[in-house]
This record gives sequence, structure tokens and C-alpha cells, in this order.
Amino acid sequence: MAERKKQKSLVIAVDLGGTKILAALVSRDGRIVARERRLTGAEGGPRVVIDRLCGAIDALLEREKIDISQLQGISVSAAGGIDDKKGVVTKSPNLPGWHDIPLRDMVKERYNLTTFLINDASAAALGEHRFGVARDARNFVLLTIGTGIGGGIVIDGKLYHGAVGSAGELGHMTIDVNGPVCKCGNIGCLEVLASGTAMAEEARRRIKQGEPSILADLVGGNIDTISGKEVGDAAEKGDALALDVIRHAATYLGIGMVNLVNIFNPEMIVVGGGVSSLGELLLAPARRLVQERAFPVSARAVKIVLAKLGNEAGILGAAAYAFEH
Amino acid sequence: MAERKKQKSLVIAVDLGGTKILAALVSRDGRIVARERRLTGAEGGPRVVIDRLCGAIDALLEREKIDISQLQGISVSAAGGIDDKKGVVTKSPNLPGWHDIPLRDMVKERYNLTTFLINDASAAALGEHRFGVARDARNFVLLTIGTGIGGGIVIDGKLYHGAVGSAGELGHMTIDVNGPVCKCGNIGCLEVLASGTAMAEEARRRIKQGEPSILADLVGGNIDTISGKEVGDAAEKGDALALDVIRHAATYLGIGMVNLVNIFNPEMIVVGGGVSSLGELLLAPARRLVQERAFPVSARAVKIVLAKLGNEAGILGAAAYAFEH
Repeated sequence: MAERKKQKSLVIAVDLGGTKILAALVSRDGRIVARERRLTGAEGGPRVVIDRLCGAIDALLEREKIDISQLQGISVSAAGGIDDKKGVVTKSPNLPGWHDIPLRDMVKERYNLTTFLINDASAAALGEHRFGVARDARNFVLLTIGTGIGGGIVIDGKLYHGAVGSAGELGHMTIDVNGPVCKCGNIGCLEVLASGTAMAEEARRRIKQGEPSILADLVGGNIDTISGKEVGDAAEKGDALALDVIRHAATYLGIGMVNLVNIFNPEMIVVGGGVSSLGELLLAPARRLVQERAFPVSARAVKIVLAKLGNEAGILGAAAYAFEH
Repeated sequence: MAERKKQKSLVIAVDLGGTKILAALVSRDGRIVARERRLTGAEGGPRVVIDRLCGAIDALLEREKIDISQLQGISVSAAGGIDDKKGVVTKSPNLPGWHDIPLRDMVKERYNLTTFLINDASAAALGEHRFGVARDARNFVLLTIGTGIGGGIVIDGKLYHGAVGSAGELGHMTIDVNGPVCKCGNIGCLEVLASGTAMAEEARRRIKQGEPSILADLVGGNIDTISGKEVGDAAEKGDALALDVIRHAATYLGIGMVNLVNIFNPEMIVVGGGVSSLGELLLAPARRLVQERAFPVSARAVKIVLAKLGNEAGILGAAAYAFEH
């Protein structure tokens, strides 16, 4: 009996990203017992990606000598639009060819095991709530800033899904009605103004217009290859253009946060994703704007902090989700 | 025993507005048993207003021959910033001189009865959920569009308050980062672009620039007295300028709704407040924008509808709040 309980204290959690797949065996207390990585191979389309995802699960089970019957379930977090009632990836900007793919049931049928599918940023929010920086918060929002900007909402200690599970697209609120068109089709979204992609684009534009920057050297003159990562590196070396680009993005980020503070009166805004490695360079201007512009009582109540679990937030959140459902 | 139960099935609910105070005796099933009105007399400051508020309660008790001991409690809904942990009106644009007024405890001490204080738009959302158009919705948002734009959020069937009770300021999200300064101090808020006040201002501006409109006649040439109400009246008569002003405001409203749809994936957006009497003139362009710009899965899931309870939503929501706490 004791043994049986112990066995069911494991899930397989998978983080399906545009570049890589991370599968892990996770215990109920949020320990990652074992992990397995694969390149996503997104360019191959859904079939290839799903084969690799299952390949990672198979390898994990075999290596750790785990039988399916020992698992509580499988939980997949994926970037993009998720219809969580149907367990379908409706659309994913980083997974070409994914339109209404019933990923949950495909995995479920293969392993004959309870399977969950949630949005990656929602998973990250749940991960930070159960095991990370937001453990003491009842109501908070999370922004993952990387190539795009994702969001997760925790209300009353639970992940908020909305009507069909696609709530939390915090990167896709219009903050500049006359701004550029976003990948999502909307206008002037936070994502198109403050993501890593937006920063890189702005840096490339200004360098091409002749502004001096060490960024050109950092990429061997190949201006078009500048990404958010390089902008961060250049800023760290004190590059004026990179610092200015980041300051602009941080201002937009702050405006987005003012909106979130006025809407949610959250205890915390947690900032994760690759771009969050900029730390105070990004958070300090955003925090200042929140204090200047948001409703004072809400501005005083909110802590704006960095995520703690890094790349493992999605895995841990997906695991928590499976244990709790 | 039966009698006692019956007695406790009543609350006094008060809607404290910038112009008038409405106090009512409300039964558990949402029936308004009796009501009492007062002018707010906001210009007299907090002391005068609170005296009138209590005067309305006293008159109601006396007329209906109700003893305090027969009541479940008193519940006040008020426009403005509310710190609901402390029961304090932190600030109210329509109540001059109100800064950190501990209204809840002032009423509570006077009647020695459990007293609640909530924001008026939140109360309206709760009212529409319990007794109005949103009875079947688990997750929805409400916008009250009048002089300003207020908001209420219902999540998982419960009013969402946030960290200190000031959540739901849906009128105060920036949608135009280069837009006009809002009364709240923020920039380009939905309120400053799509409220009745915003429509009236835009109409006045355009008429002063020489554009033809029957609005000038409607106010006897007194352009500066044009309010949202007159813009609506003129539109109903087919006035091109009024119709255009409303179309513009409806576009901004639609952009605000796109944000809400992407953030909340709500089942419904309920639109109340005086300006909602414009009906489809306001909702049709907004709905179209949501379908064009919001995430398709969320856009398909949302119904955008008019509120049903009119001026009584706040009273009924406040009453429901008292019965449920």
C-alpha cells in the first residue's frame, strides 16, 4: 500500500517549446527526478514533433525503469493557443503547421494514461506559485518575456483558465492603438513593443540608420542576426544604444504593468522568460511607471519581481497541474 | 424561529453615487422591498454626504417599521477607489474631499450592524451575476460606461477583489500610449477615449471647429453644455456628427474589449451604465473589432451583451454581497 502510494507520486511533465522539448519525471513535492531533452524539430510539422515528444517520454520511462501504471499522469505545457476543454493546440506561432492539433488525446491514447495540456506561461505561473517566488501570493500575474510575451494568471490560489482555457494572453493587449501590427493580428500589442524580438528589431533598425553601437561588432557585422540576447550582452558592456533600446522596451512593459495593476490589483507581477535576465535594467523603469501611473492603492500593494524557477517553471507547473486534477 | 429567519432575510443596500444616494431594503431573492432616495450633496464634503446616507437608511427603517436587529447587515456600494480590507473610500472622482474615508466603520458604528463596502461597478457585476443577464456565466467582466468607465470582474462565480479590493479598474487601461491624460493620472486610458464625457468633449470640439450638427440646436447654442446624453439624442435623430463621434468611441471600446477578451477569455462582457442606452450603436462596432483582432478561440467564446438591471444593479449586487458574506 505504502509502495503503491509512492509510485503514484510521480508524473511525467513535458515542456514543448519552439526550439526544444524537455520531458521530466517529477515528484509531488516538485522534485525533478530525471529529465530528457530533444530538439523540437518544429520545421518537420506536428507529426515529427509529437514523435519526438513521445520519444523523450519513452526514453525517460526506459532509463528510469518506470512502468506507466506507476504514474499519476502526463502533463504537457505548450506555447501558443490552447483550448483546454478540448485539449487542443489551436495555433502556435513557434510551431509551424499546428492548427487545432488534439495533442492531449494523441498522447493519452498512446500511453493510455490521464493526460493534461496547458499553456506554457500558465504552467510557469502555477510552477512559481507552488514551488517558486509566488508561493505566498493568492492573486498574481506572470509575464514570460522572450521571443514573445506570454502570461499566466493565478486567482485565489488557482490557475485561471477562462471560458475555454485561453485566458492570460497578457502580451496581447493593445497599449498603442496606432502601433505596429502584431504577429497575432492585433495592433500595438505589448508583445510587439517590449519582447526580445521587439528589442532586437529596434536595435537593428537604429544601427542600420547609422547609430553607433558595439552590437555590430558582437555579430561580426551581420546586423540581421542581432537577437534580444545580443542586445542584453551589449547593454551589459555599457553600450548606449542597447541600453536605450532596453529602456524603451521597459517603458512599454511598465505601461502594460500599469494596466495589469489597475485590472487585477495583484499581490505580485512575476517576470520570467529569457529577457528577464536583464533584471533591474528591465524592472526598475517598469516599477517606476507603475508607481507614477497606476491607482495608488494598487500600486502600493504590488511587488514586481523576477521569476525563480527559470526554465523549469513550465515543467514544475505542468506537474503540479496533473497532481491537482 | 421561522419568523426570525424571515427577518434576517433582509439587508439594507445603499448605492452612493456622485449625484444621488439610493437606499433600499432588499430580500435574499433580490426583491427590492422598499427604497429611499436622497441627493448626494457631494459639494458639502464627506460629513454632509454620510449624514444624508444615514438619513436615507433611517427613513427606510422608520417607514418600513424595521428594527435593526431584523437585518442581516448593511451594504454600501460607492463609486471610486475602495480599500475593501479596511473598508475605506480611498478616493472618488465624483465625491470631492473624499480621501481615505473609513465609510464602512462609520456606518457600522452608527447602526452596530455588520456593514460592507464595495466598489459600485463590482457591485453591478455581482448584481448582474446573481439576478441579471450574467446568471449563467462563471467568468465574465462588466463595463459600466457613463461619465467614466468602471469595471467589475466575476471569476468562478465570485466577485474578484484583488489584493486589497481595488481590482477591476477596466476603464483605466492604457490603450493609446500617446493619448490624452486621464483624470486618474494615467495616459490614454479607455475612459478618456470612450466614456460619455469623452464623447461629449469630442462633439464639442468638432462643433467649435465648425462642423455642422443638430447638437448646437439641441442645447440652445450653448455648446459647452453638451453631454453624452445629448450626443445620444442627436445620434438617434440621425445626426452625422453624433453618429461619427459614437462610432469613434465604440472603436476604442472595441479595442478595450479585445484586451479583455485576450486577458480573461470571458464568457461574457456585460455593458451597463448610462451610455449603454446607445445599444447596438455602441456594441456592433465593438463586437466587430473583437472578432477581427482578438484570439479567435476567445473571440468565438465571448458574448457581448447589455446589462439588464439598469440603475438597480449596484443595489442588488451590494445586497447579494452582504447575504453571501
